Amino acid sequence: MTAEMTGPPGPLGVAVVGAGYWGPNLIRNFRGSPEWDLVAVCDLDTERAQAVVGARSGVLVTADVDEVLARDDVHAVAIATPAGTHRALTEAALRAGKHVLVEKPLADSVAAGRAMVEAAAARGLVLMTDHTFCYTPVVQRIRELVHDGSLGEILFIDSVRINLGLVQPDVDVFWDLAPHDLSVLDFILPGGLRPTGVAAQGADPIRAGKSCVGYLSLPLAGGALAHVHVNWLSPTKIRRMVIGGSERTLVWDDLNPQQRLSVFDRGVDLVQQSVDSADRRAASVSYRLGDTWAPALPEREALGQMVAEFATSIREGRSPATDGSSGLRVLSVLEAAATSLRARGAQVDVADGAPALELVR
Amino acid sequence: MTAEMTGPPGPLGVAVVGAGYWGPNLIRNFRGSPEWDLVAVCDLDTERAQAVVGARSGVLVTADVDEVLARDDVHAVAIATPAGTHRALTEAALRAGKHVLVEKPLADSVAAGRAMVEAAAARGLVLMTDHTFCYTPVVQRIRELVHDGSLGEILFIDSVRINLGLVQPDVDVFWDLAPHDLSVLDFILPGGLRPTGVAAQGADPIRAGKSCVGYLSLPLAGGALAHVHVNWLSPTKIRRMVIGGSERTLVWDDLNPQQRLSVFDRGVDLVQQSVDSADRRAASVSYRLGDTWAPALPEREALGQMVAEFATSIREGRSPATDGSSGLRVLSVLEAAATSLRARGAQVDVADGAPALELVR
Amino acid sequence: MTAEMTGPPGPLGVAVVGAGYWGPNLIRNFRGSPEWDLVAVCDLDTERAQAVVGARSGVLVTADVDEVLARDDVHAVAIATPAGTHRALTEAALRAGKHVLVEKPLADSVAAGRAMVEAAAARGLVLMTDHTFCYTPVVQRIRELVHDGSLGEILFIDSVRINLGLVQPDVDVFWDLAPHDLSVLDFILPGGLRPTGVAAQGADPIRAGKSCVGYLSLPLAGGALAHVHVNWLSPTKIRRMVIGGSERTLVWDDLNPQQRLSVFDRGVDLVQQSVDSADRRAASVSYRLGDTWAPALPEREALGQMVAEFATSIREGRSPATDGSSGLRVLSVLEAAATSLRARGAQVDVADGAPALELVR
Amino acid sequence: MTAEMTGPPGPLGVAVVGAGYWGPNLIRNFRGSPEWDLVAVCDLDTERAQAVVGARSGVLVTADVDEVLARDDVHAVAIATPAGTHRALTEAALRAGKHVLVEKPLADSVAAGRAMVEAAAARGLVLMTDHTFCYTPVVQRIRELVHDGSLGEILFIDSVRINLGLVQPDVDVFWDLAPHDLSVLDFILPGGLRPTGVAAQGADPIRAGKSCVGYLSLPLAGGALAHVHVNWLSPTKIRRMVIGGSERTLVWDDLNPQQRLSVFDRGVDLVQQSVDSADRRAASVSYRLGDTWAPALPEREALGQMVAEFATSIREGRSPATDGSSGLRVLSVLEAAATSLRARGAQVDVADGAPALELVR
Repeated sequence: MTAEMTGPPGPLGVAVVGAGYWGPNLIRNFRGSPEWDLVAVCDLDTERAQAVVGARSGVLVTADVDEVLARDDVHAVAIATPAGTHRALTEAALRAGKHVLVEKPLADSVAAGRAMVEAAAARGLVLMTDHTFCYTPVVQRIRELVHDGSLGEILFIDSVRINLGLVQPDVDVFWDLAPHDLSVLDFILPGGLRPTGVAAQGADPIRAGKSCVGYLSLPLAGGALAHVHVNWLSPTKIRRMVIGGSERTLVWDDLNPQQRLSVFDRGVDLVQQSVDSADRRAASVSYRLGDTWAPALPEREALGQMVAEFATSIREGRSPATDGSSGLRVLSVLEAAATSLRARGAQVDVADGAPALELVR
Repeated sequence: MTAEMTGPPGPLGVAVVGAGYWGPNLIRNFRGSPEWDLVAVCDLDTERAQAVVGARSGVLVTADVDEVLARDDVHAVAIATPAGTHRALTEAALRAGKHVLVEKPLADSVAAGRAMVEAAAARGLVLMTDHTFCYTPVVQRIRELVHDGSLGEILFIDSVRINLGLVQPDVDVFWDLAPHDLSVLDFILPGGLRPTGVAAQGADPIRAGKSCVGYLSLPLAGGALAHVHVNWLSPTKIRRMVIGGSERTLVWDDLNPQQRLSVFDRGVDLVQQSVDSADRRAASVSYRLGDTWAPALPEREALGQMVAEFATSIREGRSPATDGSSGLRVLSVLEAAATSLRARGAQVDVADGAPALELVR
Repeated sequence: MTAEMTGPPGPLGVAVVGAGYWGPNLIRNFRGSPEWDLVAVCDLDTERAQAVVGARSGVLVTADVDEVLARDDVHAVAIATPAGTHRALTEAALRAGKHVLVEKPLADSVAAGRAMVEAAAARGLVLMTDHTFCYTPVVQRIRELVHDGSLGEILFIDSVRINLGLVQPDVDVFWDLAPHDLSVLDFILPGGLRPTGVAAQGADPIRAGKSCVGYLSLPLAGGALAHVHVNWLSPTKIRRMVIGGSERTLVWDDLNPQQRLSVFDRGVDLVQQSVDSADRRAASVSYRLGDTWAPALPEREALGQMVAEFATSIREGRSPATDGSSGLRVLSVLEAAATSLRARGAQVDVADGAPALELVR
Repeated sequence: MTAEMTGPPGPLGVAVVGAGYWGPNLIRNFRGSPEWDLVAVCDLDTERAQAVVGARSGVLVTADVDEVLARDDVHAVAIATPAGTHRALTEAALRAGKHVLVEKPLADSVAAGRAMVEAAAARGLVLMTDHTFCYTPVVQRIRELVHDGSLGEILFIDSVRINLGLVQPDVDVFWDLAPHDLSVLDFILPGGLRPTGVAAQGADPIRAGKSCVGYLSLPLAGGALAHVHVNWLSPTKIRRMVIGGSERTLVWDDLNPQQRLSVFDRGVDLVQQSVDSADRRAASVSYRLGDTWAPALPEREALGQMVAEFATSIREGRSPATDGSSGLRVLSVLEAAATSLRARGAQVDVADGAPALELVR
């Protein structure tokens, strides 16, 4: 992929494959974007696809992917089908010279994901993972706060994502929900998500044949610990991430739109380690009990930003912020978690999630 | 211990040993109780003890435990000193014929705790663990809801207890905070807390020499999973327990006094397991999306109830609701967690927390 | 209007006039409804209208209302223009034989509103006020709870609607925000909103030339009091209505999607009035401190329900749930409030908001 | 009163009169204060008083006020009896040369309050009103933010204090609850609370013979409006004050201990008034949408600060922060509200709440 401006002078043409749960959201955002021209929607159920597109519309509706891939006015394809189909569809689209956006998770295995990343790199085409949360104003702000040192050294991250969820037929709760948390971790941590191990605890108390309650422990370099709780069985909905730093700690409560992000100027410091002291406690630990600060956040729909980034990365011939490699790092943790589960929670290593072939940045 | 009414006709005399962090709370509640006569407060720092007792007071203040134990008008002793001193003080008090209340954790090891339980049983005296939370109206109500079947089969329990806490000189975050969660689990679960294993993940990102962030996974019989998150480093305070059941799920949010307890008539059921079905999802899972119910709870101070239970168990010659055995079961989990931590989180067995010698019930 | 099924066999054709702030919401919902076919969008700014409609669309975009009114395939018109234009547009549409939906407030004066109601009645056409909140699941449930006696006798209603709002060029905060609260009151109170008086307090501390902070007191028959607080200057957003009843009290907190509606089985009763009693308090007042109950509410977009009701009322030849009369009762309170404001808050009477001409029900 | 250090070298002796609802709180705080020696508790019901004082205590318990006033070791008297008795008890204490603290409201009429203020001034003794909220860390911080200009010009104040309250035998909801709000307004507003009028709306829907729901509108100099909502009949408890300023706005939510005070750097400004402009709105109003800031607040019991201020004002021979005059200004508003109520909510003037005789400051 050459790092040059590419594409037509007007909007880029895009086709959405899959009009089920997630596809309509992509359709709506491609339609609303000045960067994009929604040319076609492809679904085996054309009636469903037509209903999404609506009446009095000139958008092509078809069940035939090849028809879509053959069109010259389609520059990119967005795939919103089950994970097991991502690899074949992506490879077909790349062969047809189309840039590709893939719904999370990138694929259903590290091997498939790596093949997709390599295929896109070989053809110089953009492969983007739709890690939607990374395009929310709050996560973008969190990334800034981590990267500019406002939090200091990361000490712990605790992420909870629980609600009464659809028990999926083919994947467990880790594969269904944890990609959200893991993709955010990958986005905000400098260098991406590269834990030194993964330990997973799961439970299937309703005998669904797969974990419906799950906990992931992800030790990070330097002694920090990230932890993720995902749960399909909780009637109370919680979406909260706490990121503890040596300087400040932030809390992202996604269900509190009035104060989604709070930054606490509080913490615990170890000033000195005087084990002989009679009063070791007072000597060695200091507390900061400062103010709380809630940054103003713009109101922007994440998917709108995401499709804009897809267009810009194509135009500028660069990797998008959430490229195939980020999707691959998330897959690597998910696979390691599955291995840990089979080992009753023992900590296991993570396959190298960072492919040798990096795209142009 | 004979199961007969015992003690003086008027209030029982009590001495509190330790006037540091927790002692003043005990002192205030013994003073305010018609069942008790606070006779003495014992602390090496008599000036601190006197300040707690206040001016114009006839309560004995002394640094000499033996002086207190020698008094005939002292029927019981409440111990609020560091855990490492609990065994020796308890044994001395029992030898002097006093009933004993011990601040949590019961002791600093399973061995010490078991010795205390056996010594009390041998002398027929009450040994009570001050598991304060078990005497709150909300936990009493939760116990009822679990025991009367309102929740159905327990599927999962998730407990979070995090805040900016004092890094303790001698114990880690598990020993400091988890006794609260574990004692509640022991109180509400029929048969007490008897997990089939313990896996612990801890982190010490501030290099305090002990875990400051901790996670406990406690698989329960029948496929359920209990999980506890304790954390000294979080500037945001969370005290929330979710208990998921096959019939209903409850959420106890201790920081929401206006609705501390919510019972959700919602959940996920596995209706049938038809793996051949084309649409396995619809066939096998059903969702209840019913109302939420928040039981009215009386306003009562837990410690007042606790000291009343201590008096009543002495009077009636029976074990208190939170006896030495319950304290011992909590200790067993804490010791197993320490073992798991040393094994990088591997799941370990729990020493039998139920002593052979049961008190009279 | 004859109470017979009318209209074409397929969807009803509709044109939306005004593509500014509210129009796009109507457009989206008419488009998504199987009952409707969005034929045209009319706005003086056709570029804006075209952007709302989107590319690859067959919907007519025009600046010419007459062109729209002349079309046979347009059965109804939805008006989302400034209030001062509602009367003329409505009368033109009615003259062309179209049913009319009008954004709140119905008009800019009681006189104009009454003329519109009478014109629609004279021609047997539906005139509907878009009181959107009345079509939310929560307000529909509140109406049921009031009407079926669950709350008992209404004692007080307190409604707060404050946030940082756009200071409108032509209307004050009462006319901008209070229609929401008043339309809900009209919808839920048996017999509609018919206060025995109106007292208004307003403030214009930023010297905008109109009230930016406002309070309405609306005494109701039987001694109850309704009160509305509207405010453009509050950076904290509150949308809460408390309806106190002799049997139960409900709280609608619209910013808490997890528990939008709570019903409290608590209250104060006057048991007897024994003024001679030494302890009159205990003798005369009793308190209920029962449970709280949060009914499950379906997730449905209010505007979708509203456009469905518009279609059904046309099909069935009946008045819609929020007809022109309800819009007129709201106008009557707003006009009385303006009168009270000029009289420094003195309580004034309300012009009869119930027109003589009732539509077929 | 001479502005010199006065009183004994050790703690000041104090007697509390009234051991009912509020007295025990005063007793506990005088006991816990190094500045004070609780000498006596006086109540007609000596058994109740003795129960409050507790066993093994040397504090005098008596039903005889004169016995207490005759003692030389009693330097001050704290009065926590019904408002109708405040004047006579205060005048007796002043005649005996004692400094006086009076529970809110200062008296049951402006005339009584003024007589008390004048009597204290005449004898050079401290007369303090127990406006407890003014001694909370949050209100002290609010006062600073108002006084140092952080909020800019005050635009509006909205205070809500509602919960299921005891219907009082002798006073209505205004006299029972509004003193809290009014005393805070008096404390934080530069120059104290001096509204240009008072309009009150009340309702007695349970026919208790007095208002159980009440609203106060208090226009302030400069176009601002303060408003107070007090309510005995609400099962949901709200304690919230919003203070809108030209620079910033603060929200005090007393039931949110984790973020009691929020300061919003948001607001609406009127930039210019260009009535001829085609787009008057954009031209004349600007919005700030900045961050939110929650100052760290110390954890201190307000009553402890209050009794300390009482001691210090005696020692330093100065008026306390909440002196008799502040109590008198609160009374003036309450009396005006009663007048407005009788006039169906018409706005009435406030009697001059600022007495001619100011104490030494």
